[in-house]
Amino acid sequence: MTQSSAQAPLNRILLTGAAGGLGKVLRESLRPFAKVLRLSDIAEMAPAAGPHEEVQVCDLADKQAVHDLVEGVDAIVHFGGVSVERSFEEILGPNICGIFHIYEAARRHGVKRVIFASSNHVIGFYRQDETIDASVVRRPDSYYGLSKSYGEDMASFYFDRYGIETVSIRIGSSFPEAQNRRMLSSWLSYDDLTQLIQRGLFTPNVGHTVVYGASDNATVWWDNRLANHLGYAPKDSSEQFRAKVETQPMPAADDPAMVYQGGAFVASGPFGDE
Amino acid sequence: MTQSSAQAPLNRILLTGAAGGLGKVLRESLRPFAKVLRLSDIAEMAPAAGPHEEVQVCDLADKQAVHDLVEGVDAIVHFGGVSVERSFEEILGPNICGIFHIYEAARRHGVKRVIFASSNHVIGFYRQDETIDASVVRRPDSYYGLSKSYGEDMASFYFDRYGIETVSIRIGSSFPEAQNRRMLSSWLSYDDLTQLIQRGLFTPNVGHTVVYGASDNATVWWDNRLANHLGYAPKDSSEQFRAKVETQPMPAADDPAMVYQGGAFVASGPFGDE
Amino acid sequence: MTQSSAQAPLNRILLTGAAGGLGKVLRESLRPFAKVLRLSDIAEMAPAAGPHEEVQVCDLADKQAVHDLVEGVDAIVHFGGVSVERSFEEILGPNICGIFHIYEAARRHGVKRVIFASSNHVIGFYRQDETIDASVVRRPDSYYGLSKSYGEDMASFYFDRYGIETVSIRIGSSFPEAQNRRMLSSWLSYDDLTQLIQRGLFTPNVGHTVVYGASDNATVWWDNRLANHLGYAPKDSSEQFRAKVETQPMPAADDPAMVYQGGAFVASGPFGDE
Amino acid sequence: MTQSSAQAPLNRILLTGAAGGLGKVLRESLRPFAKVLRLSDIAEMAPAAGPHEEVQVCDLADKQAVHDLVEGVDAIVHFGGVSVERSFEEILGPNICGIFHIYEAARRHGVKRVIFASSNHVIGFYRQDETIDASVVRRPDSYYGLSKSYGEDMASFYFDRYGIETVSIRIGSSFPEAQNRRMLSSWLSYDDLTQLIQRGLFTPNVGHTVVYGASDNATVWWDNRLANHLGYAPKDSSEQFRAKVETQPMPAADDPAMVYQGGAFVASGPFGDE
Amino acid sequence: MTQSSAQAPLNRILLTGAAGGLGKVLRESLRPFAKVLRLSDIAEMAPAAGPHEEVQVCDLADKQAVHDLVEGVDAIVHFGGVSVERSFEEILGPNICGIFHIYEAARRHGVKRVIFASSNHVIGFYRQDETIDASVVRRPDSYYGLSKSYGEDMASFYFDRYGIETVSIRIGSSFPEAQNRRMLSSWLSYDDLTQLIQRGLFTPNVGHTVVYGASDNATVWWDNRLANHLGYAPKDSSEQFRAKVETQPMPAADDPAMVYQGGAFVASGPFGDE
Amino acid sequence: MTQSSAQAPLNRILLTGAAGGLGKVLRESLRPFAKVLRLSDIAEMAPAAGPHEEVQVCDLADKQAVHDLVEGVDAIVHFGGVSVERSFEEILGPNICGIFHIYEAARRHGVKRVIFASSNHVIGFYRQDETIDASVVRRPDSYYGLSKSYGEDMASFYFDRYGIETVSIRIGSSFPEAQNRRMLSSWLSYDDLTQLIQRGLFTPNVGHTVVYGASDNATVWWDNRLANHLGYAPKDSSEQFRAKVETQPMPAADDPAMVYQGGAFVASGPFGDE
Repeated sequence: MTQSSAQAPLNRILLTGAAGGLGKVLRESLRPFAKVLRLSDIAEMAPAAGPHEEVQVCDLADKQAVHDLVEGVDAIVHFGGVSVERSFEEILGPNICGIFHIYEAARRHGVKRVIFASSNHVIGFYRQDETIDASVVRRPDSYYGLSKSYGEDMASFYFDRYGIETVSIRIGSSFPEAQNRRMLSSWLSYDDLTQLIQRGLFTPNVGHTVVYGASDNATVWWDNRLANHLGYAPKDSSEQFRAKVETQPMPAADDPAMVYQGGAFVASGPFGDE
Repeated sequence: MTQSSAQAPLNRILLTGAAGGLGKVLRESLRPFAKVLRLSDIAEMAPAAGPHEEVQVCDLADKQAVHDLVEGVDAIVHFGGVSVERSFEEILGPNICGIFHIYEAARRHGVKRVIFASSNHVIGFYRQDETIDASVVRRPDSYYGLSKSYGEDMASFYFDRYGIETVSIRIGSSFPEAQNRRMLSSWLSYDDLTQLIQRGLFTPNVGHTVVYGASDNATVWWDNRLANHLGYAPKDSSEQFRAKVETQPMPAADDPAMVYQGGAFVASGPFGDE
Repeated sequence: MTQSSAQAPLNRILLTGAAGGLGKVLRESLRPFAKVLRLSDIAEMAPAAGPHEEVQVCDLADKQAVHDLVEGVDAIVHFGGVSVERSFEEILGPNICGIFHIYEAARRHGVKRVIFASSNHVIGFYRQDETIDASVVRRPDSYYGLSKSYGEDMASFYFDRYGIETVSIRIGSSFPEAQNRRMLSSWLSYDDLTQLIQRGLFTPNVGHTVVYGASDNATVWWDNRLANHLGYAPKDSSEQFRAKVETQPMPAADDPAMVYQGGAFVASGPFGDE
Repeated sequence: MTQSSAQAPLNRILLTGAAGGLGKVLRESLRPFAKVLRLSDIAEMAPAAGPHEEVQVCDLADKQAVHDLVEGVDAIVHFGGVSVERSFEEILGPNICGIFHIYEAARRHGVKRVIFASSNHVIGFYRQDETIDASVVRRPDSYYGLSKSYGEDMASFYFDRYGIETVSIRIGSSFPEAQNRRMLSSWLSYDDLTQLIQRGLFTPNVGHTVVYGASDNATVWWDNRLANHLGYAPKDSSEQFRAKVETQPMPAADDPAMVYQGGAFVASGPFGDE
Repeated sequence: MTQSSAQAPLNRILLTGAAGGLGKVLRESLRPFAKVLRLSDIAEMAPAAGPHEEVQVCDLADKQAVHDLVEGVDAIVHFGGVSVERSFEEILGPNICGIFHIYEAARRHGVKRVIFASSNHVIGFYRQDETIDASVVRRPDSYYGLSKSYGEDMASFYFDRYGIETVSIRIGSSFPEAQNRRMLSSWLSYDDLTQLIQRGLFTPNVGHTVVYGASDNATVWWDNRLANHLGYAPKDSSEQFRAKVETQPMPAADDPAMVYQGGAFVASGPFGDE
Repeated sequence: MTQSSAQAPLNRILLTGAAGGLGKVLRESLRPFAKVLRLSDIAEMAPAAGPHEEVQVCDLADKQAVHDLVEGVDAIVHFGGVSVERSFEEILGPNICGIFHIYEAARRHGVKRVIFASSNHVIGFYRQDETIDASVVRRPDSYYGLSKSYGEDMASFYFDRYGIETVSIRIGSSFPEAQNRRMLSSWLSYDDLTQLIQRGLFTPNVGHTVVYGASDNATVWWDNRLANHLGYAPKDSSEQFRAKVETQPMPAADDPAMVYQGGAFVASGPFGDE
């Protein structure tokens, strides 16, 4: 995949959350897809904007700021917001209000395609001996998961009402390596994540498609047959990390990390105020 | 159903939204189920508290107020919040924050059963020639529907995490009469609504059960077989209103009121700020 | 149901097959639904056209004749063609060509609603201990059943392509009485048939709906849940004929009349030319 | 239903378990179905054989005795064996060996129809907020339930291999009255049980049909749509006993009697030898 | 695969449509499967019959001619008839009458296996973001698709009635190369087509099996799990043509070629006579 | 896979049936998984116990002997009992009583994981043109199949009641080579069998998982998606034996070996006493 942005298929892609863990990766890997990458985060970003880049600090909870951010882009890759479990109040602004701001801005500025970083935590309370596809009733495992579930609903609504198309990626665990036993199943390599975004951006007629974001791991709980039309074909596998991971002590059989697809999130917090 | 609250099975039920359309009905019809009904609304209520009643004004968006409200009750019948389509911003406080406040308060005060007034608008974008049950992927038709869908997720989460049980009633159209062609399908009589709440309060082991709230109408789009354990047996039918309704002019074939289960909601608004 | 055609909801209904067994019944029972009934058959009809009636002899295999027949009607109740098992060649003209002529004429003359007399023989090779709904793969049991299956496909195509809506009724056995053991399951009373046509004509937004035509019999192999939106509620039952039917000698256990839903049709013919 | 056995449709029915609780009921209620009822139990029966009755003591674990018992009958209504939870060893002879003896005797003596008293305990580990039909994977709750599950498999095998047809009735709780909260769902009246056996004996072509045995109760966990061809239409309902039952103290929320469809059986025993 | 027809597993295969685009390919690739290939088309064929070949001109609409054609063959590979959209009248003879003639001839001459060239156009009105298998209700997109759907019904009927087995291949787009964006999904290489026919001819006990004919493309809308028993394992992929295809201008988002699985066929014609 | 038992993940595995055909294979291939293999069979074993081995003769029908056998092991790989069709009486002790003894012993000695050698004969009456997964209703084809079905029920019961986890492997045909046409589908290589056992022993949280035991053959009737969490990835294929197998004469089309998944078992015996 060469980097010659001049021949890139899209003019301008907005990447939110560009200063985050995955954002930094995507800042590089999305480069071939657009002539210009508009990068945004609530925090200042380093390095500063390079060639074919625009950098714009933006608080997703600020409606006007989001509308300014979205103006002039062809597609949105929305990785911004809180990406771990936090209290309801901390998640409300960036994730709940944020997703509304993104879609309402997309509608007003005529953006027709969104890639939404959803999460396995929208179905985290399914058990690890269950195989599920995208048609199951969601079972969010955290306030974070609840906000991502709300985001999928928002995507569904803006497609049914306004025809804005979205691919919601229920990301498993996207890190350089699978770090524990659960990640042997949920791991998503950076290359496979990039492929998913590419397929999401360039497949025609996706409506609102939900796809699970996992690599070609030996054990996967997620069946992507309802997203066949994306043609996602993961190239990596967590098997390369198995030996290393299995030197870790085995957790107790009833440790949520071993029982539920959402792992430790199902028991995180509570973030109430006791 | 006699009114002798002394023998009522529950000690104290909280009814939110008690000054609203359905709230006024339930203020009467729930009386036999508890020794005391605690009635709440954001607005002042008339008449004032009668025997076996407590009245407490409460803004659902105010976390502390909700925690005070919930203290000491055995069950919550949650009909409060915005019940029509409004802008995202108007719905955020009472419905999104409100549902979190209700469940977090329930957790902290040990309340184990909630009846949640969800809505057909969580699945409003299904067409009227489709028959759906409670296992379908939701398709909300409005910001209002989005907030109710979030509420169902919240109920699922508080059951999976904390064991608080909920019956979410996807209310069709609960009015004294079916007022138009769509309501011939979606109508829910006050008596049948009351029965649903009764079944929801007193059926043991409901987990998070989703049930569609419609009477025994001739045409119903909703299949309640997954809620068989509630034993809901509607007694009323909209057929009594058919002759009157059918004197109304027939809407155009592509009028959303005739095409989608959510009716006019699917085209309401937008409540963006243009 | 009074007969005051002046207030009838439709202006003109075309009834094909009006001289046949069911046609004669419908000539009477459809009267309240239209100001004028246009009656057609390949044979001369007796009695001649009465008030609010038009009579037009028509060979369904004759394209131009069908186009003339359809001109000026609001809806078509298509019961014409061969209604028993015959050779492929005998069925080709009236049923295969006939159904194309009907739909193409409907398209050219702007008719938006068709009631199609399909048949249980499109699924006749399912066994009598199987319960099926409208989503199963068809298993036609005869050349007749094949032609009705083709008719359902034609209805599907004209809806998907041109928006002409159809209710296809998979008629069981519509006679004054259930005449044998199989008909205790498949019997459809004339009143219930009329109700089905009424629901098919006046329910908005039916797309292409397939409904099984059976009365409220004690044993029915057919599950109509996918046609709930029609609100069909059969009023009659074959139980009234059970005692009489059960005086008949029991057929052999492997008699197709006892094994397959299509009964004797599954073994009729062959109508090849040996 | 008159008692004139001379016109009874079958010549001779074998009823096993005739001295048991349900056996005594069926000794009366099956009378119209056969000219002669052959009654059997491991225990002596009182009263002795009346007109149109034959009485034969038989240990189901004794293969030769069962073969003698089955000779000359047209159909078998198999209610014999252990009908409560016991140790594996106590159940092995009468239930495991017994069911083999019954079917092998049926094969050798040309009996073509069996009614098998299976039990809800073959699916007892499903929860009370789940609705199940006859296609679910069984989850037996006891050694007793295991033996009934084995019996259903035996019935399936003798149909697939030898064409002997069976209706397996997964009996809920068949008593004069519903005695506790769980039975409000699982109750099966004696009349409805008799109707089920009648439908099972006289419906042609049942293959191996599994049907849940419950009356028309307000809450039933079991969906009989796959047995529609039997035409079972329960006439009784447990609602008549609700008021009385609800005076009983409410069991704890985690009492198996309130959680699982199999009720207390899921926690009975163990009948190991500690 | 050597060409030594002397060891070929079948004695004589009839290939209809042998002068057509795919026919010419199969004339070569089916050679190893039979000692003699009988080649037929409505047109004269060039080159003339070679070794191990017989050539017979035949109009499929001519019953006697088809009966003569089928005499003496062991299996039929039926690719004859109209293979593009045409008017109903043009399709009637070769496709509707033709398929009846083929099966009736097979019955009379004892042929037990047919490979039927069905088409993706029997399900063409499904959208490209839907994944379907062979159990879905068909949605034909053209008169051509209607005739193929009728052919599948005919195959089903002749199996249920007479035990003649068929593999119906719903061919996607079988060309030397994928020529446009839609064909990246629907492309079927000639080698994979040949493999499908081979599997269809030599797999025992196929009943009436429906299989989708597509290569191992990155995006396929069709799930062949119900045809697993064929063991079809496509070897080619359209990815080799992607770069070239993607230089074509992107069609409009609502171009049927981009929306529906049937592509442009869904909007072809009409072939009525206006 | 090195043989250094000292680093083996488990301390002691019990392998029953260790003198049988598969037992001898597993005696070698399971070596890396435990520091000590306890080997048992009803027959004397040769060779005698080697290093890291214990040998214990045991009749599975002898409860006390089984309890002694199980004491001190961490996991049980249960391949003992009768593994071909025999009379009911011959199967009763080792298979029916045997499986109870194994689980009851596991419960008493705190063993938490069992690998159960179930069999394709629990579903042997499905046809070879049907694709099934682990959720289908079983259709045992023999007394042997009935005993394995009972074993799966026992595994389900001991998990639901006592939390003992099991992987039931429905073994196809595990031999050095595929020996006939049916085995081209059902063949399971020894290496793939070993992999299945390894996955079954070391995957956390399997509950009661049912997995079909077949290699990566070209035609497989069995869909293992419900066991995805095991991560079983077969490495071998029966294609290597196809040429040799296809030199065998083709069985008749109605030979059970060609019709049913269970092959010849569906017609074996009967082992009644005629």
